[in-house]
Amino acid sequence: MKVIIIGGVAAGAKAAAKIRRLAPDAEINLYTDDDYVSYSSCGLPYYIGGAFEDFRMLLVRTPAEFEKQKIHIHLKHKVIKILPDTKEVLINVIDKNKNIKKPYDKLVIATGARARIPEIKNVELPQVLPLRTLNDGKKLKELTVKSNKAIIIGGGYIGMELIEAFVKRGIHVTMIQNSSHLLTRLDTDMSELIYEQLMSISHSRFDILLNENVTEFVGDSNRFYGAKLSSGQFIDGNFAVLATGIIPNSEIALEAGIELGVTKAIKVNEKMETSVKDIYACGDCCEENLIIDNKPTWYPLGSTANKEGRCAAMNVCGITERFAGVLGSAVTRCMDLTVSQTGLSEKTARIRGIEPISVTVTKDDKVGYMPDSNNITLKLTAEKSTGRLIGGQAIGSMDADKRINTLASAILAKLTAAEFCMNDLTYAPPFSPTIDPLLNAAMMLRDKILKE
Amino acid sequence: MKVIIIGGVAAGAKAAAKIRRLAPDAEINLYTDDDYVSYSSCGLPYYIGGAFEDFRMLLVRTPAEFEKQKIHIHLKHKVIKILPDTKEVLINVIDKNKNIKKPYDKLVIATGARARIPEIKNVELPQVLPLRTLNDGKKLKELTVKSNKAIIIGGGYIGMELIEAFVKRGIHVTMIQNSSHLLTRLDTDMSELIYEQLMSISHSRFDILLNENVTEFVGDSNRFYGAKLSSGQFIDGNFAVLATGIIPNSEIALEAGIELGVTKAIKVNEKMETSVKDIYACGDCCEENLIIDNKPTWYPLGSTANKEGRCAAMNVCGITERFAGVLGSAVTRCMDLTVSQTGLSEKTARIRGIEPISVTVTKDDKVGYMPDSNNITLKLTAEKSTGRLIGGQAIGSMDADKRINTLASAILAKLTAAEFCMNDLTYAPPFSPTIDPLLNAAMMLRDKILKE
Repeated sequence: MKVIIIGGVAAGAKAAAKIRRLAPDAEINLYTDDDYVSYSSCGLPYYIGGAFEDFRMLLVRTPAEFEKQKIHIHLKHKVIKILPDTKEVLINVIDKNKNIKKPYDKLVIATGARARIPEIKNVELPQVLPLRTLNDGKKLKELTVKSNKAIIIGGGYIGMELIEAFVKRGIHVTMIQNSSHLLTRLDTDMSELIYEQLMSISHSRFDILLNENVTEFVGDSNRFYGAKLSSGQFIDGNFAVLATGIIPNSEIALEAGIELGVTKAIKVNEKMETSVKDIYACGDCCEENLIIDNKPTWYPLGSTANKEGRCAAMNVCGITERFAGVLGSAVTRCMDLTVSQTGLSEKTARIRGIEPISVTVTKDDKVGYMPDSNNITLKLTAEKSTGRLIGGQAIGSMDADKRINTLASAILAKLTAAEFCMNDLTYAPPFSPTIDPLLNAAMMLRDKILKE
Repeated sequence: MKVIIIGGVAAGAKAAAKIRRLAPDAEINLYTDDDYVSYSSCGLPYYIGGAFEDFRMLLVRTPAEFEKQKIHIHLKHKVIKILPDTKEVLINVIDKNKNIKKPYDKLVIATGARARIPEIKNVELPQVLPLRTLNDGKKLKELTVKSNKAIIIGGGYIGMELIEAFVKRGIHVTMIQNSSHLLTRLDTDMSELIYEQLMSISHSRFDILLNENVTEFVGDSNRFYGAKLSSGQFIDGNFAVLATGIIPNSEIALEAGIELGVTKAIKVNEKMETSVKDIYACGDCCEENLIIDNKPTWYPLGSTANKEGRCAAMNVCGITERFAGVLGSAVTRCMDLTVSQTGLSEKTARIRGIEPISVTVTKDDKVGYMPDSNNITLKLTAEKSTGRLIGGQAIGSMDADKRINTLASAILAKLTAAEFCMNDLTYAPPFSPTIDPLLNAAMMLRDKILKE
């Protein structure tokens, strides 16, 4: 069996390793246009921030380690066309600038996603870059050494994590967000709270400008001055990061006649099969099923990529395995602030045709007399008609995601708020108040649903 | 409506406050033989350890605050008899050494539990004491000031927490456990790991002696020397704590003809009603339903006491509320080690007639390259015949209980290991590895169940 895998960051690398374990005789070739393979891109902000200094810590497996397992890694090999009729891929060998064709029996598309590059004048300057690949991370880390002012365009998860990274490097940060809120996957009330809390811990180390657009980057290839905003303001900076979202690398699939989903990512079934026989897709390039309503979503995250890579590999090898989908669980940290969510926000629920009902509580996350007790704000959302839990959002200190995962299990199990109130959560003063804030919120939500 | 409440630490105090909110005209009298009311006994180890210096931090509500709400608190008033026929209680006013009778329409028994005092020679010495009441805690705290060697008898949760407390006070600790394992609610393999891990972080600050019995405490009311062990060894110490378990204060109920459960704690239904009309019980003195098998258990914990007090109060006031029971979720910390569990251990499952199947995994609790990454060991247990999750045990660093609560939701919802594998847990490098250890364990358990 000849297996070709396109892309090798998370899903592709996972698929390669799993296929090798299941099919010792398979011929496995992995092509990537990247200079690196099998690395933790989610770790880049921590590498930049100095949690560790050697970028090789981010490498899960090196090409040499893959080669020992007879998994052939081809770096700087860009697959430019999939030819399903002849079961071949057309590959551009970047360094030699020549094209080659390779046959496959099974093809795994794990092309991931790329940074969305906004249309801003001089966006192509070398001091303006996204954070997506390991190369991006290395360049950004180099820039932090010789800089004292950074500009971040975009207020999503990557932007949040980069505020922390740059502050830890002693670099002042200005974040510019084109909408009225940060982290727009959350509900507006929660986003507002995040902004407030970040401002309260900023201590002039970073600024966040909302409702601002960058119209132009100012500088040349040798020198960078900063960014001009539509308001007329000029923001000084030694470099700028584009943290303005990502786009699935699904064009190559579309061109090959593979069906895309409503989210423009590649459509797959539970076995990670695309619409074309013997072609699988996994990771950030493909669409997910949202377990809550069994409708498509695109939630490109490392944990999901890993699971999808594993699932694709098993089915490639003839072992039926099903990936049920995602709940949309995620967490990010910015300084001492943890933001986490699972399931649907109120606004997303409405977009998806579910009428939500929510409560928000702010409580101590540990017993108040413990010295490291902090506030946690929890928003719990249920489907109004049934009381079934459909989402949660948390803002708090380090372990705010703890409550979100407890909720994820409940959402997966389709528990109602009333049923969740029967939960028995651990209690000791260093860990939670006597009644966990999650139970306070669930009881309030249950009562609110009863009153409606 | 005349309401009498016996006992006022957690359940009793909660019941009093809740009844007041629901029944503004009720006459509420709370009698306790304690010097204090409404305090966090779970916080005593942290008070002793110096997390805070003022014991008043432990007080949830003072008698004066209760009085403002017209809840009459009678300290040092010991209820010595319940007279259901005449609906009265007989009370000994301790300071005056006289007995009085008071009538009730509704009675709430919240007598809690008391320390089990082992039969050891000289156990009555003033330097030998349990840790149960706030008075115990104050005495222990005073002893730590003038001591440099402590002895702890018993290796349960309180013992664990006191190791930490005394070490933080610079006091050397010797723990003496009469069985071969610590924390015997956990399975033996997990208890062994706890012992190993504690030894590895001891750095001579504490010793733990297993399979040892204290035969005699040596000293007099002025001076304490230490404890003689059955092995002949003599352990030096300035004081000794009896952390040898607790006993429900259910005798007063039994004498009044109220039914006790198989665990010797007071039997109650979901409405916290005892077998005698208009008499309710809540908190550590009463038995719980284990949600997993709907059979009785006794799991005296602060969080449960709080919920039961609330439930009893509502039913006292004529509002039907049901307390479903417990899962047995708990957490404790000793130094940098967190131990947490929910549901049934393998051995408890067998005792309760459920054939268990388990897996144990040891994994990084965060991505390995994060500087504060630590090991976590998770044991997951399912019912062999159905695959339904019935328990989990975790040993790890600070947030090990995070995974246990995620599991508690799943056990509550009666998810199987296979169903739990579909869970979508948050991922970011400071919070967990790409695939959470809980999912690793669940997948292994699912596969093991399939193979059986």
